[in-house]
Amino acid sequence: MAPNENVDNGFESLDYVDDEQKLHHEERTKLREEEEISVERVFQHQLVPSWRNQLTLRAFVVSFLLSILFSFIVMKLNLTTGIIPSLNVSAGLLGFFFVKTWTKFLEKSGMLRQPFTRQENTVIQTCVVASSGIAFSGGFGSYLLAMSEREAKIASDSSDFKDPRLGWMIAFLFVVSFLGLFSVVPLRRIMIIDFKLTYPSGTATAHLINSFHTPLGAKLAKKQVNVLGKFFSLSFLWGFFQWFYTAADECGFQAFPSLGLKAYENKFFFDFSAIYVGVGMICPYIINISVLLGGIISWGLMWPLIKNQEGHWYAIGLGDGDLHGIQGYRVFIAIALILGDGLYNFVKVLTHTLLGLFNQIRNKQRENVLPVADQDSPSSPQLSFDDRRRTQLFLKDQIPTWFAVGGYVAIASISTATLPHIFPQLKWYYILVIYLIAPTLAFCNAYGCGLTDWSLASTYGKLAIFTIGAWAGASHGGVLASLAACGVMMNIVSTASDLMQDFKTGYLTLASPRSMFVSQIFGTIMGCVISPCVFWIFYKAFPDLGTHTSEYPAPYASVYRNMAILGVQGFKSLPKHCLLLCYIFFAAAIAVNLIKDLLGKRGRFVPLPMAMAIPFYIGPYFAIDMCVGSLILYVWEKINKAKADAFGPAVASGLICGDGIWTLPASILALAGVKPPICMKFLSRATNVRVDKFLGN
Amino acid sequence: MAPNENVDNGFESLDYVDDEQKLHHEERTKLREEEEISVERVFQHQLVPSWRNQLTLRAFVVSFLLSILFSFIVMKLNLTTGIIPSLNVSAGLLGFFFVKTWTKFLEKSGMLRQPFTRQENTVIQTCVVASSGIAFSGGFGSYLLAMSEREAKIASDSSDFKDPRLGWMIAFLFVVSFLGLFSVVPLRRIMIIDFKLTYPSGTATAHLINSFHTPLGAKLAKKQVNVLGKFFSLSFLWGFFQWFYTAADECGFQAFPSLGLKAYENKFFFDFSAIYVGVGMICPYIINISVLLGGIISWGLMWPLIKNQEGHWYAIGLGDGDLHGIQGYRVFIAIALILGDGLYNFVKVLTHTLLGLFNQIRNKQRENVLPVADQDSPSSPQLSFDDRRRTQLFLKDQIPTWFAVGGYVAIASISTATLPHIFPQLKWYYILVIYLIAPTLAFCNAYGCGLTDWSLASTYGKLAIFTIGAWAGASHGGVLASLAACGVMMNIVSTASDLMQDFKTGYLTLASPRSMFVSQIFGTIMGCVISPCVFWIFYKAFPDLGTHTSEYPAPYASVYRNMAILGVQGFKSLPKHCLLLCYIFFAAAIAVNLIKDLLGKRGRFVPLPMAMAIPFYIGPYFAIDMCVGSLILYVWEKINKAKADAFGPAVASGLICGDGIWTLPASILALAGVKPPICMKFLSRATNVRVDKFLGN
Repeated sequence: MAPNENVDNGFESLDYVDDEQKLHHEERTKLREEEEISVERVFQHQLVPSWRNQLTLRAFVVSFLLSILFSFIVMKLNLTTGIIPSLNVSAGLLGFFFVKTWTKFLEKSGMLRQPFTRQENTVIQTCVVASSGIAFSGGFGSYLLAMSEREAKIASDSSDFKDPRLGWMIAFLFVVSFLGLFSVVPLRRIMIIDFKLTYPSGTATAHLINSFHTPLGAKLAKKQVNVLGKFFSLSFLWGFFQWFYTAADECGFQAFPSLGLKAYENKFFFDFSAIYVGVGMICPYIINISVLLGGIISWGLMWPLIKNQEGHWYAIGLGDGDLHGIQGYRVFIAIALILGDGLYNFVKVLTHTLLGLFNQIRNKQRENVLPVADQDSPSSPQLSFDDRRRTQLFLKDQIPTWFAVGGYVAIASISTATLPHIFPQLKWYYILVIYLIAPTLAFCNAYGCGLTDWSLASTYGKLAIFTIGAWAGASHGGVLASLAACGVMMNIVSTASDLMQDFKTGYLTLASPRSMFVSQIFGTIMGCVISPCVFWIFYKAFPDLGTHTSEYPAPYASVYRNMAILGVQGFKSLPKHCLLLCYIFFAAAIAVNLIKDLLGKRGRFVPLPMAMAIPFYIGPYFAIDMCVGSLILYVWEKINKAKADAFGPAVASGLICGDGIWTLPASILALAGVKPPICMKFLSRATNVRVDKFLGN
Repeated sequence: MAPNENVDNGFESLDYVDDEQKLHHEERTKLREEEEISVERVFQHQLVPSWRNQLTLRAFVVSFLLSILFSFIVMKLNLTTGIIPSLNVSAGLLGFFFVKTWTKFLEKSGMLRQPFTRQENTVIQTCVVASSGIAFSGGFGSYLLAMSEREAKIASDSSDFKDPRLGWMIAFLFVVSFLGLFSVVPLRRIMIIDFKLTYPSGTATAHLINSFHTPLGAKLAKKQVNVLGKFFSLSFLWGFFQWFYTAADECGFQAFPSLGLKAYENKFFFDFSAIYVGVGMICPYIINISVLLGGIISWGLMWPLIKNQEGHWYAIGLGDGDLHGIQGYRVFIAIALILGDGLYNFVKVLTHTLLGLFNQIRNKQRENVLPVADQDSPSSPQLSFDDRRRTQLFLKDQIPTWFAVGGYVAIASISTATLPHIFPQLKWYYILVIYLIAPTLAFCNAYGCGLTDWSLASTYGKLAIFTIGAWAGASHGGVLASLAACGVMMNIVSTASDLMQDFKTGYLTLASPRSMFVSQIFGTIMGCVISPCVFWIFYKAFPDLGTHTSEYPAPYASVYRNMAILGVQGFKSLPKHCLLLCYIFFAAAIAVNLIKDLLGKRGRFVPLPMAMAIPFYIGPYFAIDMCVGSLILYVWEKINKAKADAFGPAVASGLICGDGIWTLPASILALAGVKPPICMKFLSRATNVRVDKFLGN
């Protein structure tokens, strides 16, 4: 029932009891007690405001200002490289600074009516993430821009186009952005309490927010804040230091072939990013090992072997990013694995839920709907004080399931009716089908994100492009239909994972799920207006935006256009054996999950297909970062388990937060046109000889 | 009297006593006692063999084999870059492994008559260093090769030449290589016991040798060996890792512009070499600060200012390494500082010695010649057990002063008579003058090396080139005379510092100075035969050796030829104001020393001119490494002084040894023609754009 619970408990079995270990154990127990005091016991005497009081006016004012700031940053990243890191941490931190300064000012003038609580802080963070998330899932650098005439011309595609206009963009976002929220709200208990999913960014943000609001006098908490602060600074400075050496692409530490040039070509390298080392320290070992295993199977074995078939399985000279070639295998096999794992877990949860419901009705018991929840109920004595208190508050303010389902159905209906008016190519029955499947995929994405911190929204978007494109066909405006479908899908799955990430933060900071939900709604409304406006500024200010030579090339726009063109040709245009491999991996994902469940306790050593899928597409470099994090924690635990347990999360959060916040000044520097002065380049010896000769002349 | 003693005690004043500090103090006292037990008390029950028994046949057999190995390595380095790191550590380590394996084998077969002691280990190390030292000071990559017809042609110099021949090279080395030994032997007590000079490499080697021979059961010693081993491996692996990225010059971590490109141009950067970080941890703070200060004054202020005068003070377009240009200021001002400091200390020591002698004669006391020695005599209770025991054994086996002086005079006479037969251009009175001045310079070099680990033998060699060259003049074969004089000078000062370094190692391992001296003599004899033979192999195997396009360009050969050509033109050919600046810095060095002595205890905060001079010539990058080492130690002491005191030297030795030993496989890889696969290159943004365009085509 709860696959990840096994994983969490998995560490314990690594203990072997000798004398030193015993001593450590005692120390640990002592520290654990202290830690219990340090987190929720420390806050015990602080009143948790009611969910209505967590939603203050000042929180939304600050959120609005930060939303604009973050939207600019995300838009800039969208239109330059298309890679957007998680901004949760930055949002939490900046929210704290803004409101804290404001409340301090009010406090001094004696006008402070309501103190600044961590719940309010979480509300701000949630609202800003929701709002700036739209800047990404709105597809201004991908599917939306791909619809334009400009991109159609670049792809020499004579089919339909639809140029951006402020009106229809805002309307479009309003009818598709709220579905994700409603689709996963009923699952929050399963994800957060039963599955105990990690959500590394969300957890790190929560640690940060908790540490800011820790009342004075708690010794261990203070020490933890100290450690967090130290690693935050280190990680931030490290990011800053790295920046100087990244004058261009393929420059700097991100291009460091730490395992050799051959390995680097296959994306095996340590990229020195503190953020993923921290993520690796937070994630359970099995996740990190799964990711690495996935990377070795795909980039270490399969892709090189498939590349040897160039000319046989697919045409020669297609380029690394061509979906007719090697990239096709990468994307579609990853999708197959994710779908297999996601579907298995979805069906499993559904079965359990239905069984539980059936039992409930039969026994006429009103509490403990889920069989697993019996063990984990808030009053259960095995749970730590922290867990009990958090679970209690998380379950206090319910969002009724009928409300979520009703909301989803209502908005889906409006959306199904409205969208064909915006995109005549997108027939109402396409939309209906998407809305029937979307909750499953939203669950998959929220689940995967909880395991690994990666949101694969764009992968699901691609799935929509191919299925709807194939369905509509080239003659019926399939390109535009599939791009619009991609937008619908991306918005749903992206907001779903963001919301669940925020629920995790809320769980750890005792913020009410209800206030989280309202904050998400507000944030989404802001985002639906702010993001198109920000994009409009860029679009009008840079007339060459989206073209190859522009300062804002928006590389993904043309990628998406090309994917859509490929999509209307159907699965038949995939490279040879690709579909077969997809079937195999889809089945394998289900089989592995079955084995995992059948093995019971020993199943914790079986890798997770969902985690394995991510490096299939992206490459294994981040898996190496994560394993480095795991290794550090492992060695630390061997040396001093008590300390590692007490300070490991603080170190990890510090690393994640520092690197995360660095993206803010880095983006500002980029917006201001300040470029790094140096390129740290890695050349093979032969190339270096040529370059030296060239520079010598 | 003992400037460095003040420096050593200097740390204590940084302590401020609050409660935590007090606790640390108690912990430290306990640890200190433990440490005392761990070093000489641990060895207390081990018999120290008589000096004759320290000199075993097996030691010399192993020394002979290692000498050949190291001579190859040094020769290779000579003929490629000309930069040779200290090989003391490698010699100690390999000596241990060879003899230990041999004795273990004998032990198992029951044939072991004499156990392997640390004194024997030190003898091997000393012998190998003496022997392979000749490969450097023999000038096969510098002055000796500079005499050849080939180099004369390259420098388009029509004056004399003398091509290498095995016969005269061996004869030359035999008559000049032993003088250094005799010239500093009488000063060993002053340098090691009174001045307590650091000799970082010698100290590190001694730590290593001690740790190898530590009897079982000593807890702290075991822990220290553990720490040493860990940092040894780290440092070695780090060296190995770095190697992969150094496909060419200006590649890899040694070219990392960690403080920016502008700073890198002025040699301000952290070059990631573990060896100098370790050296910085062993050296007193004031040394590291002095070196950094020297670097800032010279490369941060003076050289950039002087470069602005290009065209006024010296001709435009001379290049960075031209002695008529900026390089002239660097070399000669550094020499002036070194001479000023060295002379001041020499005169001071001489005065004290003479005063002591005068007192001794008057009071007819036979012991404690030096006034300072009264406080430091072996029976003095303030001294730790270690110091007392070491001093006692160091003073047990004396080498009579009459023997040293007699030996020096005898060899100098033979040398003066013989050398003009080898080099007719080198008149006997030149040689006589060199031999009169040489002991002073030998002292200066041994003293400076004791402070900073840098032997500046080649700097003194350059001094000889310029003075003898100017004296002889171009018409009387001055070029060849000055190069030969350089050889004479270099051999003396280089062996002097090597010997003193070994005396330090001997002091710390209870090896007798007498056995050290004999071992040096043996080593020198070996070196005088092995080195020319090894060179002969290279010279015959690579007919293009010494030319620009060769695999073995021997860059310093042409540098030395050019210096000699400059030298015969006299000081007048120096750039403008250079001589004036030299006078100023010479006077400043004396003034600073005077102030230091007049300030008494507070004088420990005054920087040392000798240490400041080194970056003047070489650049401040190694100063930054050393300061990083200092900083690490400082922070460590702040966090936990007891631990830092106990394990600091072990960490430092580990760093030095690991990086030192790495040069061995690195050299073997180079000899085998295995080149690193990758170049980590640092380009400015503008250059990078050009390179990317070039590579794109």
